Amino acid sequence: MRVGILTGGGDCPGLNAVIRAAAKTLFASGVEVMGFRDGYRGIINKNLMPIDKRAISGLLHRGGTILGTNNRDNPFNFPVKTPEGKTEYCDVSDQLLENMHELKLDNLISIGGDGTLSIAKELVEKGARIVGVPKTIDNDLAATDQTFGFDTAVATATEALDKLHSTAESHHRVMVLEVMGRYAGWIALWSGVAGGADVILIPEIPWSLDSIVEKIEDRQKEGKLFSVIVVAEGTPGPDGERVVRQTIKGSGDPLRLGGVGQVVGSLVEQATGIETRVTVLGHIQRGGSPSPLDRILATRFGVAAAELAMAGRSGLMIALKGTEITAVPLEDATKKISNVTPENQLLQTARATGICFGD
Amino acid sequence: MRVGILTGGGDCPGLNAVIRAAAKTLFASGVEVMGFRDGYRGIINKNLMPIDKRAISGLLHRGGTILGTNNRDNPFNFPVKTPEGKTEYCDVSDQLLENMHELKLDNLISIGGDGTLSIAKELVEKGARIVGVPKTIDNDLAATDQTFGFDTAVATATEALDKLHSTAESHHRVMVLEVMGRYAGWIALWSGVAGGADVILIPEIPWSLDSIVEKIEDRQKEGKLFSVIVVAEGTPGPDGERVVRQTIKGSGDPLRLGGVGQVVGSLVEQATGIETRVTVLGHIQRGGSPSPLDRILATRFGVAAAELAMAGRSGLMIALKGTEITAVPLEDATKKISNVTPENQLLQTARATGICFGD
Amino acid sequence: MRVGILTGGGDCPGLNAVIRAAAKTLFASGVEVMGFRDGYRGIINKNLMPIDKRAISGLLHRGGTILGTNNRDNPFNFPVKTPEGKTEYCDVSDQLLENMHELKLDNLISIGGDGTLSIAKELVEKGARIVGVPKTIDNDLAATDQTFGFDTAVATATEALDKLHSTAESHHRVMVLEVMGRYAGWIALWSGVAGGADVILIPEIPWSLDSIVEKIEDRQKEGKLFSVIVVAEGTPGPDGERVVRQTIKGSGDPLRLGGVGQVVGSLVEQATGIETRVTVLGHIQRGGSPSPLDRILATRFGVAAAELAMAGRSGLMIALKGTEITAVPLEDATKKISNVTPENQLLQTARATGICFGD
Amino acid sequence: MRVGILTGGGDCPGLNAVIRAAAKTLFASGVEVMGFRDGYRGIINKNLMPIDKRAISGLLHRGGTILGTNNRDNPFNFPVKTPEGKTEYCDVSDQLLENMHELKLDNLISIGGDGTLSIAKELVEKGARIVGVPKTIDNDLAATDQTFGFDTAVATATEALDKLHSTAESHHRVMVLEVMGRYAGWIALWSGVAGGADVILIPEIPWSLDSIVEKIEDRQKEGKLFSVIVVAEGTPGPDGERVVRQTIKGSGDPLRLGGVGQVVGSLVEQATGIETRVTVLGHIQRGGSPSPLDRILATRFGVAAAELAMAGRSGLMIALKGTEITAVPLEDATKKISNVTPENQLLQTARATGICFGD
Repeated sequence: MRVGILTGGGDCPGLNAVIRAAAKTLFASGVEVMGFRDGYRGIINKNLMPIDKRAISGLLHRGGTILGTNNRDNPFNFPVKTPEGKTEYCDVSDQLLENMHELKLDNLISIGGDGTLSIAKELVEKGARIVGVPKTIDNDLAATDQTFGFDTAVATATEALDKLHSTAESHHRVMVLEVMGRYAGWIALWSGVAGGADVILIPEIPWSLDSIVEKIEDRQKEGKLFSVIVVAEGTPGPDGERVVRQTIKGSGDPLRLGGVGQVVGSLVEQATGIETRVTVLGHIQRGGSPSPLDRILATRFGVAAAELAMAGRSGLMIALKGTEITAVPLEDATKKISNVTPENQLLQTARATGICFGD
Repeated sequence: MRVGILTGGGDCPGLNAVIRAAAKTLFASGVEVMGFRDGYRGIINKNLMPIDKRAISGLLHRGGTILGTNNRDNPFNFPVKTPEGKTEYCDVSDQLLENMHELKLDNLISIGGDGTLSIAKELVEKGARIVGVPKTIDNDLAATDQTFGFDTAVATATEALDKLHSTAESHHRVMVLEVMGRYAGWIALWSGVAGGADVILIPEIPWSLDSIVEKIEDRQKEGKLFSVIVVAEGTPGPDGERVVRQTIKGSGDPLRLGGVGQVVGSLVEQATGIETRVTVLGHIQRGGSPSPLDRILATRFGVAAAELAMAGRSGLMIALKGTEITAVPLEDATKKISNVTPENQLLQTARATGICFGD
Repeated sequence: MRVGILTGGGDCPGLNAVIRAAAKTLFASGVEVMGFRDGYRGIINKNLMPIDKRAISGLLHRGGTILGTNNRDNPFNFPVKTPEGKTEYCDVSDQLLENMHELKLDNLISIGGDGTLSIAKELVEKGARIVGVPKTIDNDLAATDQTFGFDTAVATATEALDKLHSTAESHHRVMVLEVMGRYAGWIALWSGVAGGADVILIPEIPWSLDSIVEKIEDRQKEGKLFSVIVVAEGTPGPDGERVVRQTIKGSGDPLRLGGVGQVVGSLVEQATGIETRVTVLGHIQRGGSPSPLDRILATRFGVAAAELAMAGRSGLMIALKGTEITAVPLEDATKKISNVTPENQLLQTARATGICFGD
Repeated sequence: MRVGILTGGGDCPGLNAVIRAAAKTLFASGVEVMGFRDGYRGIINKNLMPIDKRAISGLLHRGGTILGTNNRDNPFNFPVKTPEGKTEYCDVSDQLLENMHELKLDNLISIGGDGTLSIAKELVEKGARIVGVPKTIDNDLAATDQTFGFDTAVATATEALDKLHSTAESHHRVMVLEVMGRYAGWIALWSGVAGGADVILIPEIPWSLDSIVEKIEDRQKEGKLFSVIVVAEGTPGPDGERVVRQTIKGSGDPLRLGGVGQVVGSLVEQATGIETRVTVLGHIQRGGSPSPLDRILATRFGVAAAELAMAGRSGLMIALKGTEITAVPLEDATKKISNVTPENQLLQTARATGICFGD
């Protein structure tokens, strides 16, 4: 028996731990493991990485993925060089399935986010045998209670908040921290509660400057001359419009600058007259050694995926429900995003401790 | 309205976060908060600590408890000095209830472990109004899925394992780490999986030296000349007998030495001839700044306790079920310990990745 | 005897440790300690903070400064509200000296950077008795081998590099990290060596894009498809011109965006075609608990300052030379910045391990 | 040209960083690098590990040593199996030199402590070409101001003290931490100052129980009902006699139990009646990822050793003097241990802040 593994999408602490756990489980039953480099591209190009016991030694606590990843290529719309040197986008999914067949893969463990799993679902519909493992820093998949990498990202953001707190207090400043969370505010909510933020702004809750200013002024009345604000990157501006990052004038470049964190910071500074500093945490949230919890969750996901793969199952995604690992259909997995709702218990807890959400 | 707070039992990261969250919630409704020092003793001796907004500022990330704690005194069997200077043990629970009445306490939030909550239950039976918040590093209360402090303890043990790993590998040694867990092996199981242990010994699973030696020798055959063993302090010896720590000869002292970690270490060294080193992690697991997850869990527990207290509820303990905070009767809370069962999913996951449990 | 203490300038881990050590030393000789809030402004406005044993308890590991700080107000050019409500800038140094006299200060310990110590020097020339303690994250004072806070800032930057490394490797990307260092490249050089950077750009060394691109391409030839670049914020652009941060169009705000890190990132991406991500570490480098080394250095500085103050010395600044604490005249202290010279041993070490400095 | 590398003695964070830096420097000049496994034993048995660019990739932040180490075998007294299966100890140094010659080694970089460097000196006297790199967690070599690994060990001990502090305070306890330092008290002194210890006991200063008890009682009078004591493992008992660790009765085993930390703990508990807890930090101090400072120091040592080796130098050891790397004769290197003297500035600083040394 032979099972393939690939990782797709953005970086996330715990990917290597999933690979290690799946491989260990497969080895224990004498199953051969074949790694593909850089996501589905590795199958299309037959770019293999041999996975043996030595390859997975020492992987548990290492960030990143030894298989490499890729968050652009889609086999249904894949960049192919024409003989003239131009790039055309073609559907190479048949080629991918043929390669899987040729390589005698009995099953494929596909670890990735929304994009990677949607492709997995389409491939399964075309006849491929795939088990999915969900991966998202943002923890915004409705089909699983938690994803690995999220706890590490929250820890990184919380550590940053701890550091900003002392400076805010010493300098009587407002410190703004922009954290990840394109569609859902989970990292902002969790790290904001853990890091003692005074204001948390998330995509799910429209905010007004007045509400933030009121909170800051209330604190000043109590003798607290500083405030800390956490903003999820996907939070719209005060007008409800999405904030598009600016580019450096004249450089025509795609590097993203000044997102919503900067917008919030400048509005607050103008409105309150208090010196304000903005930090955009960025990719630091995606890297580094996974937290113990993420290593455990990733290990559980990896073992469960290997067991399903060995059992010949397909079209399923591993998920955490409460304290138990289970599996859900891939199509459910990618259908619904999990958002912070008004009824969310942690949101209500945060409100109870006095955190302002700008509403 | 006036609500009291006390902390009892051993130290645990997150106690201050519970106090802070409960107080913030109570303040928001204009409720007065009264802290008692060193557990129930603080009520008996009317040793109060005023809790105002300033007292709880900066508490979220601080280890320990500003209220002090106490893991010996029981109001039903309380040490009282006689006029002759001797110590007698008396039931002072009536006095305690009278003091609560006199201090015009509408409710009491009692944060503690098995002992503290059992006393709470008895006091409630005598007419006191108390809401309990569970606290145990060992995470062994059946009534709640998780307790704050556990994630931090697991992180401390995992970090120690990461450090021991590199030395084990460089020196071709067996490293034994003894972690907390008197009756249940949760810390050993979680940190062992997160830290990549080769062998995990817990109170719930009888072990034989042969099984451990076989695992170590299997590793050697694969070229891995080192092994890492995690042992929960409550694990019995190979004969199934409890290992009592030795005392220093001639000192007649109560300091605990050489527990089961030492026993395992010396047996393994004798049997394999491989140099073995033992580390007893001890109280380091109970201290320090709580992890983000523990800060969040403690904050949720604190808010929920305050809300129950304000609602005039009593005889309940806060608990986590799945992803939701709920409340259970105090009597359920202390009745059953949660142990690692053969069916436990994480145990099975650990076995699937090749971890040996000595059986 | 009575000694005052103040902290000025930007935040820096270890300020509280200096205050604690100085106060403990002064208390041991029965000297009274008077804290001033928010730098020299605290003396001008007689804004005192009583410093007793309780005030300094638990301070050693806390970031920030309990005295508050201020990096704008200069007593020789101090903002004063006129009766009409306008702000005028006046020389209030005579008032400051008078207040010191009135408060019966025998000496003042002034902890701060270039600005704070320059003011101290001028006040000493006017007759004040002041001992200076140098504070700069950037470690760019020629008069001392090291300043507290630097080791912590280097640790924060190194940890960020460790995290970016795994993502860079998994995604085959170039990751750019902009760190502090306005005039000197010490943080970039130290963290770059500690974090395994491939390219380090500092204010002292003019760089060309070609040199960086060559380094990245050399790495690709060796199969290393990723690179990590550290840039000090004060590094000029490729034309040798200072890079002024852009502001968000239309917001008229003073928040700084897109500095030299962004410039380097976009140029590299354009030149190599490799996806590039930029992280600006910002104020996180100034906050948080000081590293053990910084706690020790801050403690040594605090004790030495207290001893000089008690000995009636003035016009001196504490300094580290090799492994010994010593004192230098305040005027030397602020005269010369320490820069990374071509002869610097660590720079040469970095070059020997293959790190590219863009030249 | 061909240069060998080996690592000997106990584990120490930074060994891999030395190997990496030396190899990178040698590769840059086209020199071939040959690694030997497990110290001198690797030369005697011709147990080689090929060192190429790939082998040293990702090594900078990894604890331990990829070459393996060995702190028992001495080529001048080497265990050899006789044909009858017995072990005899023989001088195999001629064989070692012959192997070096046969393998065409132009020079050898020997990284290790007192023992490893003493052997290096003797081998140099017999004609070998060796450059030494000092390695000691204890930082007790007089010939260098600091050794790599020490900063990491101090950080680990300081972190443990931070954790014990909160528990000590919450429980009104005395917490004793036993740290490494067989002959010199540097780790205890540095971590004690950084971790805010109340009492520090080191091998260099005889102590009396009375002095410790007085300190603890003075603190109680100030309302501080807890104390933290750091003890270096090599500190003699109160009678000036070396404390030999006890063994578990009946097990006849060589595992060390109850050292001086336990002795101090039980004496203090008996004398003061305050509950006391002892933690022996053990091997955790030797493992883990090196701190940024240690990575830098190790890198500087590695580059300097490679440069000397390429220059054909021999009989020298790399050393840090002030802020500069230099080299000293190997014979000086191993002659003198560096101890904490009464004049030591940090000792005096510690005393000034009120720390008690038991004298």
